[in-house]
Amino acid sequence: MDTVKYLLTEDRMPTSWYNIAADLPTPAPPVLHPGTKQPIGPADLAPLFPMALILQEVSTERAIAIPEEVQAIYRQWRPTPLYRARRLERALDTPAKIYYKYEGVSPAGSHKPNTAVAQAYYNKQEGVKRIVTETGAGQWGSSLAFAGALFGLEIKVYMVRVSYEQKPYRRALMEAYGATVTASPSEETASGRAILAEHPDSTGSLGIAISEAVEVAAQNDDTKYALGSVLNHVLLHQTVIGQEALAQLEMAGDYPDVVVGCTGGGSNFAGIAFPFIGAKLRGERDVRAVAVEPAACPSLTKGRYAYDFGDTAHLTPLVKMHTLGSTFVPSGFHAGGLRYHGMAPLVSHLVQLGLIEPTAYQQLDTFAAGLQFARTEGIMPAPEANHAIAGAIHEALRCKEEGVSRTILFNLCGHGHFDMQAYTDYLAGKLRDFEYSDAEVAMALAGLPSVG
Amino acid sequence: MDTVKYLLTEDRMPTSWYNIAADLPTPAPPVLHPGTKQPIGPADLAPLFPMALILQEVSTERAIAIPEEVQAIYRQWRPTPLYRARRLERALDTPAKIYYKYEGVSPAGSHKPNTAVAQAYYNKQEGVKRIVTETGAGQWGSSLAFAGALFGLEIKVYMVRVSYEQKPYRRALMEAYGATVTASPSEETASGRAILAEHPDSTGSLGIAISEAVEVAAQNDDTKYALGSVLNHVLLHQTVIGQEALAQLEMAGDYPDVVVGCTGGGSNFAGIAFPFIGAKLRGERDVRAVAVEPAACPSLTKGRYAYDFGDTAHLTPLVKMHTLGSTFVPSGFHAGGLRYHGMAPLVSHLVQLGLIEPTAYQQLDTFAAGLQFARTEGIMPAPEANHAIAGAIHEALRCKEEGVSRTILFNLCGHGHFDMQAYTDYLAGKLRDFEYSDAEVAMALAGLPSVG
Repeated sequence: MDTVKYLLTEDRMPTSWYNIAADLPTPAPPVLHPGTKQPIGPADLAPLFPMALILQEVSTERAIAIPEEVQAIYRQWRPTPLYRARRLERALDTPAKIYYKYEGVSPAGSHKPNTAVAQAYYNKQEGVKRIVTETGAGQWGSSLAFAGALFGLEIKVYMVRVSYEQKPYRRALMEAYGATVTASPSEETASGRAILAEHPDSTGSLGIAISEAVEVAAQNDDTKYALGSVLNHVLLHQTVIGQEALAQLEMAGDYPDVVVGCTGGGSNFAGIAFPFIGAKLRGERDVRAVAVEPAACPSLTKGRYAYDFGDTAHLTPLVKMHTLGSTFVPSGFHAGGLRYHGMAPLVSHLVQLGLIEPTAYQQLDTFAAGLQFARTEGIMPAPEANHAIAGAIHEALRCKEEGVSRTILFNLCGHGHFDMQAYTDYLAGKLRDFEYSDAEVAMALAGLPSVG
Repeated sequence: MDTVKYLLTEDRMPTSWYNIAADLPTPAPPVLHPGTKQPIGPADLAPLFPMALILQEVSTERAIAIPEEVQAIYRQWRPTPLYRARRLERALDTPAKIYYKYEGVSPAGSHKPNTAVAQAYYNKQEGVKRIVTETGAGQWGSSLAFAGALFGLEIKVYMVRVSYEQKPYRRALMEAYGATVTASPSEETASGRAILAEHPDSTGSLGIAISEAVEVAAQNDDTKYALGSVLNHVLLHQTVIGQEALAQLEMAGDYPDVVVGCTGGGSNFAGIAFPFIGAKLRGERDVRAVAVEPAACPSLTKGRYAYDFGDTAHLTPLVKMHTLGSTFVPSGFHAGGLRYHGMAPLVSHLVQLGLIEPTAYQQLDTFAAGLQFARTEGIMPAPEANHAIAGAIHEALRCKEEGVSRTILFNLCGHGHFDMQAYTDYLAGKLRDFEYSDAEVAMALAGLPSVG
């Protein structure tokens, strides 16, 4: 029996996003103003985001309608396929059933357009002319560039300098869509100049690039800021993934015992897992949710659950999350989308509540898993997605050891066609593992702001 | 109204390939033995291909059943979507209706797996252990590597040296799937050594790489050769594209007045166009079929319809086709998949019969068209596909000038995620146009073999 695809017809595409805030036993801690250390209100965020997104950020409604204009664009590639990985199962000789949801069929090749399109739409609705953002390896920046092109919005992207220089192809994709891309840190902003004054050779980080983008948005009336992960409304938009998977598994007559996703900022993980965790919170069905992060950026497994800034220059509000400290610059590894010092507050909160099991994998293990997947299932995964694959394979091999069959669902959040250099390096034996010592983590955490 | 997707359910995926040989008013001229200049028989091709493919090559059956094992793999990404390009139509302000079939959703990102999977299957069935092939930019090589991984076949690829060196990412994809890739010309074969003896700095060509691959296959019992375009059976396998498009247009209540495809070896063009040309040949519906080739490799528009070799070392049989001569090495341009000296005999024959209109576009025009498409439809096209887009836009603008609405269908044969350097160069003003003078073409044609 070959790999099987479960495809929903368009009329079964979700018409609302699922908001897990409605089902939480206790709400996530409030976002604080960095000066007063008091909870912020919607007005405090208005310089950065359109009001519709701010209201989504704080909403506790379970279902938030997806505007028809956004659905119309989603339908270009959604509903995305769900696959039963029969060929991988056979290669692993496991009694487990492995399903994967594939988000790489989007025009940008990842799950990021799910929120990019929504964010561009709401900005356009509120008369915004320009959106400024940051990007690491470029999945997010290219997705926002794509969405900006469709809505006639100007898109400006601060791209972490090391990726800007070493990974020119997603930058080229952004430029082809018409976006402007600047290497960060740059001379264009006070945040960038401050970093360059101290570290002229800085290769940048997501935290620095966020500072630059936030600064530009705050200073220009026609310009807003957009973030590709971490925030509640971003996670919200990604829940189309899990909702579709639920319906597709129903077609297959199945339900997952365990849902696996990779975590950087937390949005693709939330996208696949929250609808299932929600069902568990409502007492409908049990499920395990496994978050896989890189050992080289271990915010969930080695970070502290504490209030911290989202950026390096401390321009953002304070959010309670698992963090390695806002000055943490992760060691070089290839899953650029997972190189963020913090973790989505909602994911962090659910980890605290015991509803998500965090795990960390070494880079070499994830590439080995990704290649095994490519050679059986035929799809070349993004290095980020390799973490989810490694987690799923681990669960499948546990089933084999224990002689039990479980149903495993994971999110294949993007294809690796922009990341082939990483595979070349892996095959040439040039990649290495990396793990931070407790002392190094403690040092990175020493700079956390004191709150309360 | 936004861009609309027409998606077939899996049960409407074609179960047979369409063989246009059944509907031709006169058969295409026979393939000749290079020594005797007499028509070859199936036995002559047996060292190179499994018998099932040889029989498809000469079949005149209209419908050839797609084996269930091949259908099972097709279903991983097929049926592929057909889109009505409403956003592009609006940008062009044209009364035309533009539809495009999108083959970039395959694991390799192009239409090539349609035949790679079929060829790998038949080889596996006949006990072949290893397939040797050539590739230019790598679309074909990576697709065969993908298919080889699924069937447990060893894949060896001779890759044109200039692409091997300048475009390492599809090479990385082949290697990630487990294939062995060698830069051509190489020291591994007599054909390669002969070229290197004369031109030590040769950057290679498809014709040379074919010679190397054919030589290796002919000399090893457990090894066969595979070609990614040109041959009848390859074109046959691609007809799933046009058959699906027919059914999808029926869903849309439409039928094309004109079908547009880009032509290198001819297989993606045949894939989209042959089912429609077949309906015309059977007197059912009229259609125009427009083949768009690069002005820098103008086999249909400037070549001669004559018997020629498929390779540089003259190891292949003689086929009658539009050719620029088997020693022709096209100038550097970015649509690597269109850099072949010849054209599929079936496409050539239909051009001779007046059933296909050949056109040629300059590189810069095709990139301008591709960017306009990306910024409206959101999908970044491969440089090869940009030729089809340029042709479709030309037809749509003609409709506008004439104030008439026509239905245009084109094949978007692959995504451009591996080709972003070309877009960067285009945006930086580094690309140039190129056209051969009649004298240059005449010189290239002077070496054609004399037949009959």
